[in-house]
Amino acid sequence: MPELDFQPGLDFAQRLDEEDELASFREEFVFAEPDLIYLDGNSLGRLPRRTVDRVRVAVEQEWGHDLIRGWNAGWWDSPGRVGDKIARLLGAGPGQVVASDTTSNNLFKLVMAALEMQTGRDRIVSDVLNFPSDLYILQGCVRLMGSSHEIHLVPSEDGIRVDQQALFEALDERTALVTLSHVVFKSGFLYDAEAVTRRAHEVGAMVLWDLGHSAGVVPIELDEWGVDLAVGCTYKYLNGGPGAPAFLYVRRDLQEKALSPIWGWFGQRSPFDFALEYQPADGITRFLVSSTPILSTLAMESALDIVLEAGVERIREKSVLLTSYLTYLVETVLVPLGFSLGSPRDAAERGSHVSIRHPEGYRINRVLIEEMDVLPDFREPDNIRLGLAPLYTSFSEVWEAVDRIKRVVDEERYLQNSPGARLTVT
Amino acid sequence: MPELDFQPGLDFAQRLDEEDELASFREEFVFAEPDLIYLDGNSLGRLPRRTVDRVRVAVEQEWGHDLIRGWNAGWWDSPGRVGDKIARLLGAGPGQVVASDTTSNNLFKLVMAALEMQTGRDRIVSDVLNFPSDLYILQGCVRLMGSSHEIHLVPSEDGIRVDQQALFEALDERTALVTLSHVVFKSGFLYDAEAVTRRAHEVGAMVLWDLGHSAGVVPIELDEWGVDLAVGCTYKYLNGGPGAPAFLYVRRDLQEKALSPIWGWFGQRSPFDFALEYQPADGITRFLVSSTPILSTLAMESALDIVLEAGVERIREKSVLLTSYLTYLVETVLVPLGFSLGSPRDAAERGSHVSIRHPEGYRINRVLIEEMDVLPDFREPDNIRLGLAPLYTSFSEVWEAVDRIKRVVDEERYLQNSPGARLTVT
Repeated sequence: MPELDFQPGLDFAQRLDEEDELASFREEFVFAEPDLIYLDGNSLGRLPRRTVDRVRVAVEQEWGHDLIRGWNAGWWDSPGRVGDKIARLLGAGPGQVVASDTTSNNLFKLVMAALEMQTGRDRIVSDVLNFPSDLYILQGCVRLMGSSHEIHLVPSEDGIRVDQQALFEALDERTALVTLSHVVFKSGFLYDAEAVTRRAHEVGAMVLWDLGHSAGVVPIELDEWGVDLAVGCTYKYLNGGPGAPAFLYVRRDLQEKALSPIWGWFGQRSPFDFALEYQPADGITRFLVSSTPILSTLAMESALDIVLEAGVERIREKSVLLTSYLTYLVETVLVPLGFSLGSPRDAAERGSHVSIRHPEGYRINRVLIEEMDVLPDFREPDNIRLGLAPLYTSFSEVWEAVDRIKRVVDEERYLQNSPGARLTVT
Repeated sequence: MPELDFQPGLDFAQRLDEEDELASFREEFVFAEPDLIYLDGNSLGRLPRRTVDRVRVAVEQEWGHDLIRGWNAGWWDSPGRVGDKIARLLGAGPGQVVASDTTSNNLFKLVMAALEMQTGRDRIVSDVLNFPSDLYILQGCVRLMGSSHEIHLVPSEDGIRVDQQALFEALDERTALVTLSHVVFKSGFLYDAEAVTRRAHEVGAMVLWDLGHSAGVVPIELDEWGVDLAVGCTYKYLNGGPGAPAFLYVRRDLQEKALSPIWGWFGQRSPFDFALEYQPADGITRFLVSSTPILSTLAMESALDIVLEAGVERIREKSVLLTSYLTYLVETVLVPLGFSLGSPRDAAERGSHVSIRHPEGYRINRVLIEEMDVLPDFREPDNIRLGLAPLYTSFSEVWEAVDRIKRVVDEERYLQNSPGARLTVT
């Protein structure tokens, strides 16, 4: 990790931009409002320029002209083809990833498959920092299993990280499955996925990682680490577009005994036989259910190529520099104004977003969006989440964002903003 | 049902076109190859012109410019908003339909919910003509229930229709659920959904209709008929685009006791509280799981408006005329060439497609696609399926298609075509 002698001020930020190897990738994306500082990459990545063209072709040529023939000319194969592209970002060989459905639907399928493979074990381990949707899926699965399983959530002392030792102590011979977010949605805490996977395997537990906040921005080696199962979304650092299809990974040697609970036509061995009885397809295909939303899938596929061209190692390098620089600015500029850091200080424990906390966080966030041309997002109770997307976030933007946050507090602009209805997406 | 004195020949077809009230709706759709006769509307409807613009706005304005703010400006609400639009085509009041996920995923959710509501009953009734994916979903559900349920498939004597009396005799006090395709995928047989629903309710069974081949082309009155549950896709006669999101219906008075087996964040009562425990949302929202593919959803939404403008009653009227005319032509022109009708002869028992059967059906279908500019689709073992989409299929096209099929057989063109690999989509 770089130990840089950071300095405040726009000049220094511009020097970092000049030295940025990935700076030219910014041109791959649409900047409709040049003054807008967009820090919500971890909820929805920017629109790639090439995606505009790709969607036009998908609509006008493939649907409009090719019509049903499109299914034979690239649509039918898209879950596996796009899955194999994603696999390259996850350190996974081909034939182990498919792109389809949503993260939660995929999580449901894999949790049910895992619990069935782990007969005799009745404990699921996760943590209190996991994205609630993942925990809801687990609760639904336990209910489906006749409540025969218990879910153990490892606590967090500071709301930022989970102590690895505490997690390890929660793993025992009753543990069927450990399922965690690789990068935690609120604080950006990054698990040592390799160590956790190894330890879980030592007690005979399976491991399922949610890679939503790490895919494309943190190096991942699913095959090398021996990970069993994984899911993730593609609309964050992969820039796949709003609600773009998710992915799932099943390690090759598990595929023959893992069964999806949802038996669909696309996961059938010979769908065009139209046989009345389901026979699971070989390999990862059995985890498909039915037809994938093609426009959203092809849009997402085009965006993946940019990440592949940049390379995850270089992206991670810039990500660490971006979040380290932001952490430095938070500590020197914002902490004196009543903010605290809501993310790990050590870059090795951090994904690509930095949360800052302030008792007036909700109102400050509203002013940033409504008056200051800064777009972060807010997470209860007091987290302003600043997502740094290395493919298009510049160091100058990081400096400028912190400066604008400072002005909102210095000038007490947030006091004019009503606490209002808080149930909004951003 | 009209009893028309049909005549062969293009002149007569053109007269029917001149009298066609819906003829102008053809202009709503893209015809990239004017000579192509597209009869695969029941697998993928044509591209509406307005959808081209709608997708461009969704990509360039909503994603490119609005970015994450798009979720507050129409994306978040889209499953319910689009669901309510679909509901108007199904005779359903608002708040009972959501557009999301795929037909099979939705079927899975509703079957599991139904079986749970019907404790003490252990029988599911369907038929051998149902789309195999629906049967696969049922088999997966039974397995998840610990194989405590049996699936009874009502047979079909002719492979075209199911005898209503035979279906009624299969319903008993053990029957938890009757689930059928409203219009059968291969033959186009149309159930009397009202009568089946009434009879099922008399024995205490719930009813779940798959409306994939009927939505938008056959009048449906879910509320009036007292239907319990329904699912369907939107890429056939609703012209929603390849793999467009599906829909599900849960009758209002069942919503409080029906629970989805897949507990996701979008179905949670207060998602932005990020609480660790799942509480199902009120109403139909609890059947949502996670974020819907927005580009595919908005494309589909724009297409629905055309169906709403035309009105299902008028669409059905033209559909009956189209399929009756085609049936007449099959009997007068094609039966002498060795074809047989694979669909019901009575329009009251028929959806909007007509299957024709021929021992050389596979090779004839290939020649139609590759040499004759006709695009039907093929279903094993010998069915050529001709889907007539009243919004854009003309009577002249029906005549011309039959004439081209006749030429393929008259000239024995199919003999040059290899039986080849048959596992294709069309």
